[in-house]
Amino acid sequence: MHFSSPDFALAQQLDVEDELAGFAEQFSNPDPDLLYLDGNSLGRLPKATPAHLQQALTREWGARLIRGWNDGWLDLPQRLGAQIAALIGAQPDEVLVCDSTSVNLFKLAAAALRYQNGRPKLLSDDLNFPSDLYIFQGLVDLLGGGRRLELAQTSDGIEVSQTELARSIDAETALVSLSLVAFKSGFLYDMKAVNLLAQSAGALTLWDLSHAAGAVPVDLNGSRADLAVGCTYKYINGGPGAPAFLYVRKDLQAQLNLPLWGWFAAQAPFAFGLDFEPAGDIRRFQVGTPPVLALRALEPALEILQAAGIPRLRRKSVLLTEYVIYLADQWLAPLGFTLGSPRAAERRGSHVALRHPHGYQMCRALIEAAPPAPRVIPDFRAPDTIRLGIAPLYNHFSEIHRALSRLRQVAETGEYAAYPAVRQGVT
Amino acid sequence: MHFSSPDFALAQQLDVEDELAGFAEQFSNPDPDLLYLDGNSLGRLPKATPAHLQQALTREWGARLIRGWNDGWLDLPQRLGAQIAALIGAQPDEVLVCDSTSVNLFKLAAAALRYQNGRPKLLSDDLNFPSDLYIFQGLVDLLGGGRRLELAQTSDGIEVSQTELARSIDAETALVSLSLVAFKSGFLYDMKAVNLLAQSAGALTLWDLSHAAGAVPVDLNGSRADLAVGCTYKYINGGPGAPAFLYVRKDLQAQLNLPLWGWFAAQAPFAFGLDFEPAGDIRRFQVGTPPVLALRALEPALEILQAAGIPRLRRKSVLLTEYVIYLADQWLAPLGFTLGSPRAAERRGSHVALRHPHGYQMCRALIEAAPPAPRVIPDFRAPDTIRLGIAPLYNHFSEIHRALSRLRQVAETGEYAAYPAVRQGVT
Repeated sequence: MHFSSPDFALAQQLDVEDELAGFAEQFSNPDPDLLYLDGNSLGRLPKATPAHLQQALTREWGARLIRGWNDGWLDLPQRLGAQIAALIGAQPDEVLVCDSTSVNLFKLAAAALRYQNGRPKLLSDDLNFPSDLYIFQGLVDLLGGGRRLELAQTSDGIEVSQTELARSIDAETALVSLSLVAFKSGFLYDMKAVNLLAQSAGALTLWDLSHAAGAVPVDLNGSRADLAVGCTYKYINGGPGAPAFLYVRKDLQAQLNLPLWGWFAAQAPFAFGLDFEPAGDIRRFQVGTPPVLALRALEPALEILQAAGIPRLRRKSVLLTEYVIYLADQWLAPLGFTLGSPRAAERRGSHVALRHPHGYQMCRALIEAAPPAPRVIPDFRAPDTIRLGIAPLYNHFSEIHRALSRLRQVAETGEYAAYPAVRQGVT
Repeated sequence: MHFSSPDFALAQQLDVEDELAGFAEQFSNPDPDLLYLDGNSLGRLPKATPAHLQQALTREWGARLIRGWNDGWLDLPQRLGAQIAALIGAQPDEVLVCDSTSVNLFKLAAAALRYQNGRPKLLSDDLNFPSDLYIFQGLVDLLGGGRRLELAQTSDGIEVSQTELARSIDAETALVSLSLVAFKSGFLYDMKAVNLLAQSAGALTLWDLSHAAGAVPVDLNGSRADLAVGCTYKYINGGPGAPAFLYVRKDLQAQLNLPLWGWFAAQAPFAFGLDFEPAGDIRRFQVGTPPVLALRALEPALEILQAAGIPRLRRKSVLLTEYVIYLADQWLAPLGFTLGSPRAAERRGSHVALRHPHGYQMCRALIEAAPPAPRVIPDFRAPDTIRLGIAPLYNHFSEIHRALSRLRQVAETGEYAAYPAVRQGVT
C-alpha cells in the first residue's frame, strides 16, 4: 500500500472515500476528543443497545416473566450463534453463544483430547493468549494419562513460521489450538494451511477467534476447521464480559463427549430425567441456563456487523492498519519505535503493535492527556508494546492521524517521563 | 400454624399485618391480575434495575470504555459475592459471583473429588435438580479412577431421611452434594446435621442453594459447610440466566486445584505470563472475563434483599406457605389433591408442591385463563406436581387466596380437561 503524504489532508481524503464511514454514527461517542484505539479489547457501545436491552428488561422479563422462555429466550444461544456463523464461514447450526471464551475452550479442548485418546500432545504456541494456555495447562493436569502441552515457538515475538508449525505437528498430536490473530503482535495465521497440516497428521484443530471475529475474514467450513471459540466483546461490540461463542463442525457434534454435562445440553431439559441424555446437535455444547440479558445486548451489535459485511470491513481494516504503519515508519521509527506486527497485510489482523522501551509510560501519557491534547486510548502489553486496535466499524483515518501525531509528540517532547514506569490497573 | 378461616377477609387482614408488604412496590408488576407464583423459577424485575443497567451501559461502557475495568468492573464478582455472603452466613471473601450454577458446581465438585483423592464416592440424592446430577455424572465419567455417583433415596418423593443419609455417607465418600431445598418438593435439609455427618466420615460438603438463597436462612459458616453454589435468578431476582455464585470455606481456598484455569483466576492476570499461577484467595475460583452487564443488573436486587433481611423474609415465607397448605387442606384435598411438600415448616423451603393426576392440564388452565378469571402462573414438574413458588418479597396473602380459589375452580368445574395433557414448552 502506498500513501502519498503524511499530511492530515490525506487522512481527511481517505475518510471521504471510506464507504463504511457512516457506520461510526451507529456507536455511542460522547467525547469526540477521545481517540479510541482499543476496540480490540472492548468494542464501543452501539447506540441501539440501551433501548433494545430496556425492552428485554421491561417487556420480556418484567411483563412476561417465566413465559419469556417460551417466547424466545430458549433458543437465543442458537439464534445468535447462527448470526455469528455468517461472520465466520460456518453453518447456522454449528455455532452457539454461551459461557466465557475460557470455559468454551475448556469444553472443546477436553472433548477433543478425549476423542483423540492415545495421542498425548496438545499443541499451541507461545504467542497465544495466556488464558488459553492456562486452560490447556489445567486440562493436561486434569486429564493426566501422559498428556502434555507443547508450544510452537516464535523466533521474533511476532510470528510463528509455517516451518516451526510443520515440525511441531506430529503423529502424537491430538489437537492444535491457536489464536487465529495473536493478541499482542496481531499475527494472522493461514488457517487453511494449518488445518491441512493438522489434518494430514490426524490432529484436530481448535481456533480462538477472539481477535479475529468481526474484523478478519474467517472461513471455518471452507478451510475445514474442526472447532473454534471466540469472544464477542471486541470487534463484535457485545459489551464488557459479553458471552462467548463456540463452533463445532457438524459431523463431529454427536461424537464429542463434553466434560460438562449441564441441563441445557440435554436432549429434553424440561423432562427433568435423572440421567443425562445429551442432545445430538449443537445444543450439546451448552451447559447452564443461558444469560438472557447479556444475549439480548448482543443483538444490535450483530445487526450492525451483518450490515457492514466482513469483506468491506476487512478492506477498510487493511487500509487503516497500513496507514498506521506508514505513519509510524515516517514519524516514529526515527524516535526508536519498532514494528511489533507483521508488515505484510495478509499476515496481520486488525491491530498494530508498536514497540518502544518507554512504551508503558507513553501509554499513560496518551491516556491521561490534558486538553488541548487529544486523549488517546491504546492498550499496553508488557514489556514494551503499545497496541493500537483498529475497529473498521467506527475508526476513521483522521483519528489514526491524530493519535499517531500525538504519540509522536509524546515521544519527541519526552513528556512520558512524568509517568510511572510500572503498570497499575488494566489500561 | 392455625388460620381461623378460609375467607378472603383473613387474607386481607394478613396483608395489613405484613411488615414486608411494602417491598412489593419495588418490583415491576404491569398486570395486577397476574398472580405470579413462580418467583422460585424466575424472580420479578426490580423497578430500579432498568435505570441502573442503563447507567452501566451509557456512563460506564459507552463513556468510559475499557477504563471501566479500572473504575470498578474488575472486582464486581467479589463485591457482589460479599453482598451474597451476608445472605448465606459466609465471610465477604468466601463468595464470588461468576459463571452459571452448573459450571460452578463442576468447578467445585471436580476440585473436591481431586482433593479427596482415594475416596471414590460422590453422594447426592434423587431429589436433586437434574442438572446437578448430570454434572456429577459427567464428572465421574471424566475423572475415572473408579469414581462413582451414588444417590441417597427418598421413600416418599418428598424427603430424604436422616437415616438414609447417615447410611449413605461412609469412609469411601469424598463429597456430599445436595440441594438445600429440593426443586420439586421444597424439602429443606438440616444443613448442620448433614455437615456433621459428612465431617465425621471425612467427606466434604457442597450445597446447591439455588432454591434457598434469598428466602431461607442459610448459615454456611455456622453449620461448617465446605462448599456451595447457587443461582441468582430465583429469590435473588437477578434476571433470566443471571450469573451464579459460589462459596468456598476460607481455609480451603488455597488448597483446591480447579479443573478450569482461566486468566481471572491468576494471581496477576494482567501480567500476561505464560504459566498459570493461581490466586490464593477467592479469585482462584473465577475463570474468564466477568459478565459486567449481568453483574450490574444484580445490584438493585441485592439491595432490596439486604433491606428486607432474611429473618423477616423467612417469617413471612413460612406464614405464606402455611397459608397455602391450610387453603389446600380446606379446598383441594377433597378434590383429589395431595401435598407434595413436607408439612412441617422447618423442613420446607419457600415453595409448595400440590400433586394431582391432572396437574399439567390444571397448570395450563391457570396460565391461559380468560378474564374475569385471574391468570395464575405456577410451575409444573412432571408427572403431577403443581409447584407454587412463594416469594416473600412481593407475594401477598390475598394473591395466595385468589390463586388457590382459582385452582379450586379449575378443579371443580373440570375446565382443565380442555387443555392438552402433554407438556409443551417450559411454563
